[in-house]
Amino acid sequence: MSSIGEDAARVDGPAKVTGAAQYTGDLEFPGLTFVKTLRTVHPHARLTSVDASAAEALPGVVAVLTRADLVEGNSHFGPVVKDQPIVALDRVRYAGEVVVAVAAEEPGIAEEAVDLIRVEFEPLTPVVDPVEAMAPGAPILHETRVRSESRLDAAHYRYEDRGNVLTSYSVGRGDPEEGFAASDLVFEDTYTTPKIQHGHLEPHVVTAFWDAAGKLTVYSATQNPSSIRVQLAELFELPQSMVRVVVPYVGGGYGGKVHLRLEPLAAALARKAGRPVQWKLTREEVFLTGHCHASVVRIKTGVNRDGTIVAREVEAVYDTGAYALTGPSTSRNGGEVSGGPYRIPHQRLTSYCVYTNTPPTGPYRGFGVPQVCWAYEAQMDDMARRLELDPLEFRLQNAAEEGTVRADGAAFGVIGNVDTLKAVQESEHYRSELSGENRGRGVASGFWFNVGFTSAAHASVQSDGSVALILGSADIGGTRASLAMQFAETLGIPYESVNPQVVSTDAVGYTMVTGGSRTAFAGGWAAHEAALDIRRQLEERAAAIWECDLEAVSYEDGVLSGPDDQSFTFKEICEQLPHTGGLIQGKADVSPETSGPAFACHVVDVEVDPETGKVDILRYTAAQDVGTAVHPSYVESQIQGGVAQGIGMALHEEYVFDDGGNMENPTLLDYRMPTTFDLPMLDTILVEVENPGHPYGVRGVGEIPIVPPLAAVANAIHDAMGVRVQRLPATPDRLLQQLEEEAGQG
Amino acid sequence: MSSIGEDAARVDGPAKVTGAAQYTGDLEFPGLTFVKTLRTVHPHARLTSVDASAAEALPGVVAVLTRADLVEGNSHFGPVVKDQPIVALDRVRYAGEVVVAVAAEEPGIAEEAVDLIRVEFEPLTPVVDPVEAMAPGAPILHETRVRSESRLDAAHYRYEDRGNVLTSYSVGRGDPEEGFAASDLVFEDTYTTPKIQHGHLEPHVVTAFWDAAGKLTVYSATQNPSSIRVQLAELFELPQSMVRVVVPYVGGGYGGKVHLRLEPLAAALARKAGRPVQWKLTREEVFLTGHCHASVVRIKTGVNRDGTIVAREVEAVYDTGAYALTGPSTSRNGGEVSGGPYRIPHQRLTSYCVYTNTPPTGPYRGFGVPQVCWAYEAQMDDMARRLELDPLEFRLQNAAEEGTVRADGAAFGVIGNVDTLKAVQESEHYRSELSGENRGRGVASGFWFNVGFTSAAHASVQSDGSVALILGSADIGGTRASLAMQFAETLGIPYESVNPQVVSTDAVGYTMVTGGSRTAFAGGWAAHEAALDIRRQLEERAAAIWECDLEAVSYEDGVLSGPDDQSFTFKEICEQLPHTGGLIQGKADVSPETSGPAFACHVVDVEVDPETGKVDILRYTAAQDVGTAVHPSYVESQIQGGVAQGIGMALHEEYVFDDGGNMENPTLLDYRMPTTFDLPMLDTILVEVENPGHPYGVRGVGEIPIVPPLAAVANAIHDAMGVRVQRLPATPDRLLQQLEEEAGQG
Repeated sequence: MSSIGEDAARVDGPAKVTGAAQYTGDLEFPGLTFVKTLRTVHPHARLTSVDASAAEALPGVVAVLTRADLVEGNSHFGPVVKDQPIVALDRVRYAGEVVVAVAAEEPGIAEEAVDLIRVEFEPLTPVVDPVEAMAPGAPILHETRVRSESRLDAAHYRYEDRGNVLTSYSVGRGDPEEGFAASDLVFEDTYTTPKIQHGHLEPHVVTAFWDAAGKLTVYSATQNPSSIRVQLAELFELPQSMVRVVVPYVGGGYGGKVHLRLEPLAAALARKAGRPVQWKLTREEVFLTGHCHASVVRIKTGVNRDGTIVAREVEAVYDTGAYALTGPSTSRNGGEVSGGPYRIPHQRLTSYCVYTNTPPTGPYRGFGVPQVCWAYEAQMDDMARRLELDPLEFRLQNAAEEGTVRADGAAFGVIGNVDTLKAVQESEHYRSELSGENRGRGVASGFWFNVGFTSAAHASVQSDGSVALILGSADIGGTRASLAMQFAETLGIPYESVNPQVVSTDAVGYTMVTGGSRTAFAGGWAAHEAALDIRRQLEERAAAIWECDLEAVSYEDGVLSGPDDQSFTFKEICEQLPHTGGLIQGKADVSPETSGPAFACHVVDVEVDPETGKVDILRYTAAQDVGTAVHPSYVESQIQGGVAQGIGMALHEEYVFDDGGNMENPTLLDYRMPTTFDLPMLDTILVEVENPGHPYGVRGVGEIPIVPPLAAVANAIHDAMGVRVQRLPATPDRLLQQLEEEAGQG
Repeated sequence: MSSIGEDAARVDGPAKVTGAAQYTGDLEFPGLTFVKTLRTVHPHARLTSVDASAAEALPGVVAVLTRADLVEGNSHFGPVVKDQPIVALDRVRYAGEVVVAVAAEEPGIAEEAVDLIRVEFEPLTPVVDPVEAMAPGAPILHETRVRSESRLDAAHYRYEDRGNVLTSYSVGRGDPEEGFAASDLVFEDTYTTPKIQHGHLEPHVVTAFWDAAGKLTVYSATQNPSSIRVQLAELFELPQSMVRVVVPYVGGGYGGKVHLRLEPLAAALARKAGRPVQWKLTREEVFLTGHCHASVVRIKTGVNRDGTIVAREVEAVYDTGAYALTGPSTSRNGGEVSGGPYRIPHQRLTSYCVYTNTPPTGPYRGFGVPQVCWAYEAQMDDMARRLELDPLEFRLQNAAEEGTVRADGAAFGVIGNVDTLKAVQESEHYRSELSGENRGRGVASGFWFNVGFTSAAHASVQSDGSVALILGSADIGGTRASLAMQFAETLGIPYESVNPQVVSTDAVGYTMVTGGSRTAFAGGWAAHEAALDIRRQLEERAAAIWECDLEAVSYEDGVLSGPDDQSFTFKEICEQLPHTGGLIQGKADVSPETSGPAFACHVVDVEVDPETGKVDILRYTAAQDVGTAVHPSYVESQIQGGVAQGIGMALHEEYVFDDGGNMENPTLLDYRMPTTFDLPMLDTILVEVENPGHPYGVRGVGEIPIVPPLAAVANAIHDAMGVRVQRLPATPDRLLQQLEEEAGQG
């Protein structure tokens, strides 16, 4: 009985395709009230007065939350630095920040009440560019910073308490200066990306209520229920067990639902209202209140004429916005991998996260890695061109492999870097001829470590051989299926007999975020260990029934065997349980210290319209080391989704601000995300290099697909038109302008 | 840090006193529909036609369930015998049986639709008396019987497949005939009790819905979620893990919410409707559809002039009604204890459960034991009077104690029988003089084994030292507090840091009913074992942190100690967990084979109004062996509640039927339950004889308090007026008639 490797039925499939799935915003509660907020339009201002009395007096208004309601010392939250107030106190730091929140019987009444609130501001000078924000004399956003105590995985980053720099990360080996001096050629370039949006279909939404015993319950469309629980407990000074976070169906996250966001205000307002409050953001509010780090990446590489890379120096600056939804992990992740999947003796990699007066920035699929990959892989392309080397051969020549020492001094284990390069090299796509005018082909490789961290699982065995499996991980796209498959595999039972669920933070142990490409890896490991816990107990039970030593009992492929050819199938022993000592539960808490780095190599063909600057994607193939593909069609979907988002970053997506610091395009009409009309079928090649650091060889697969597309597409544009884009996205107007400029120079 | 023995804060207190507690009927769900039913008025009839077409056509009606919707082989349910159809098929067997059910957008529409349904019956001869139902030639209710496979604890009873007898139980030792022949005096009496009502404040209510993947969720005011899950899975042919039962706050049960009742119809109707359905019974429907077994108990006892009891024979007949909500356990329990808490060499104890054309009968606090205690303790009183012995001395002379062999051949362990008799004997109440006309004092003792069975617990430890404790037992009156106290005790942590919850059957292992006085006993044991599981893991973690052998680590009173005077409090090690291998969960599944029998001796003073026959309770004191009183004020409440119900059985409560077999008093006005106006303060004496078969010495306390009051009150009436009531309740009209008859004879 094997589950792994099969495209098992998706647990959430029927509910999603029939529309029956209940998302947070669908849930009804007795006495539910609805939240609307007053937001500032000033990117930076002193808040001088708040008068909400008319709103409070409006019939149907249940509660109004202003700065007067905040408790000193418990007014700010943040996953790493408690920099964000629940509502604005004396200052606002981005256009869109919440100043007052209203809960009313109906959403329309709440809106009406918001219009009755009077607030006054004294504008301050904003700083909106992260490089300018680092310069001396820049306006300072946060004079003091309070670290969050509840951060459970805060062992890695360096916090800066100076200027606007939130965190920095730096690592190196060898002597880059010496390396550059010894190199035949040195390339130095700067690549930038704008703020972009996650684009999850379901806007942020939360319902919060307090029970009479003072327990806080939050239903939230979150990727990270355990962390939300811990942070809310700290904020409201509750025992953690008095906070319960429940995650219903989630309509996409991509990192946008990793950290505390709506929950603090909703909880504070619910407490004041004494009733449940539901806060749903509009699409515009989703745009205004969070997104992915803009970046400026300076990269300098020394290479010899034979194609050997000698030295590399990277300085990446990430724009954290006004509040740190996650700054540190982005600065670390981006810095850590910015040398690329290459063997380079001399490296210095530095990155910063910097506050600006723009909306707060949180994690996004890839956690800062697409931005640096875009830089190093664009430059790799330029170097190959200059050296007249085949771009894949050049990469293979320098490719990191098992034993290659990285900038941080550690060596890679078993990795699929070379395998993915060769998979592209041998692919029908890469071997095919690309003909036609204004067409070009680009390749790019990328890697990302993936993470491990804590996961928990709990399972209760039923007397009919079915199992209720409770997972700590929110399911944002396949968690339940891929973890239940690993559980079923270990017990040798049908996947269909396992009912995997995400119940609430009360029902299972602490589990880190569904994100970081960790869930199938660490969550699957927890499910496997919970199954082993059950196996051990079944063996003991069989030994008791057969009156033999435990050693005489074995469990294989769903069958217990004992002395004298006695045996029980899993289903048979389950039927025995009630009468032989009772039913059993299994559980596991795992905290793998390692993960399994993921590598990918992508190839793309484009055609550029020289009249309009519009880029069409003709063909796209992504080869990826996926470790063991637990559920191949989910893995393919992850790759296709990541590539689509990466193409969006390359060609379309960008926050546009006016001079006053207000976003000009906060709608899905004006903020351009690629749709199926913009994309061909995205082909995938699953390279399965088993991860020796996981019981089933699993590597995370969700993030690496978004890493190479930016450079792959830009490299294809270069191949087609001979121009090097260095600022993304390569929108038609921007590309046309560059084509015209280079034509003018030529 | 000790919790046990303290009157810790009640977990459900604030929610209940503020009205914030959410009961099943308070919960809202998107698309919720409401159920009303057509019920027959015939106690026994053939159902010849059903026409629901007009109801189906009514706007707002979502689904109508008739016999045409039932699937052969999956049409009947029952915890022990699948005798009850979801809706009536070809026959109805009691007045009140559901024939058709309607789900509609609003309750009013459903009611209107019910009025449009046309049904026709051919009346059959009913049998309403259980003794008549056992006679040859009686109408037979069930020609064939199908046992329920899902019954997990069905090892004990004898099923009868003949006539109207559902089950029988018989046990004996010695030779009663020889014993009677050797006795100086032989007493033979018959005592009867009527059908009575549990009287839980919250009527039965359930909400059911199916998700798109075919999973059935049931929110139910039930005492028995795990069993409900298993039975629904069997009925609808689902894997057990595809049925989820959630128990919100429950407004009393007393046995009335132990077994499957509304759930099958609600689930079937929800499936047909494709929407959630909520079915709330009216108070009248609660009366019409279930109650406690009426009984006829014949008891014969041989005694010597010196007060030594020589032989006893009991035959108890219980009226099961039309369908067996639990027949067998009642026949067993009643039979098993009907010899009383006495040392009797010759015994034969027999009991029967018998079908009649009256509403189905389920378990009620005491599970058939109050009915037999009423018989043996009334007779004990008569014997003491005839022998001119002090009633307590007579009982002490024959009292069972450790080592006394029972009718079933087993011997008692450590028990508090003599202790409770002596506690009453030494009480201020018993030593006080009772003066005044028409006043009398009665005593009665009783016992009941209590049960063990399977319980599960699951706990997740938080990084701040708080713990979420998930219990399998529904909380109908103190479960969460008393189990959390035992959990906290084992870990040596404050009770307040444990948040005990009942989540759903998915979140925890199989757990038997909250009932049978088993929850504080077996559930507490599970909580204790889950705490031990956590202790073991904390010791391992400390050993890893201190880099020492596990043997060098000890855990006592919430503190881990290791080499070199190193130590961690529980809270301190919890703070270490995230960084030293992750947080932990604990769990336990226990199935104690024993329990701890409970004994009680009650004394009551009454005054009878000779003009009206009305009995006033002047003073009441209940001494009870409670084992270790985990939470003394909860224990007192359990005793007071049980005594109140027992007084109701003695003086007030009774189903009254008209000649057509319809109940005449299905309202709380006409069905007389005692209120605070009828009762004095009920005094309690907690006798703590630790149960050696439990880690904390716990015995169940919930049921034994209802056992002695019937006889104690009747004995007091005898003492006051010289008349022996043999049929309960001793209502004013009935007692007046008896007083007049005896005066006429005198």
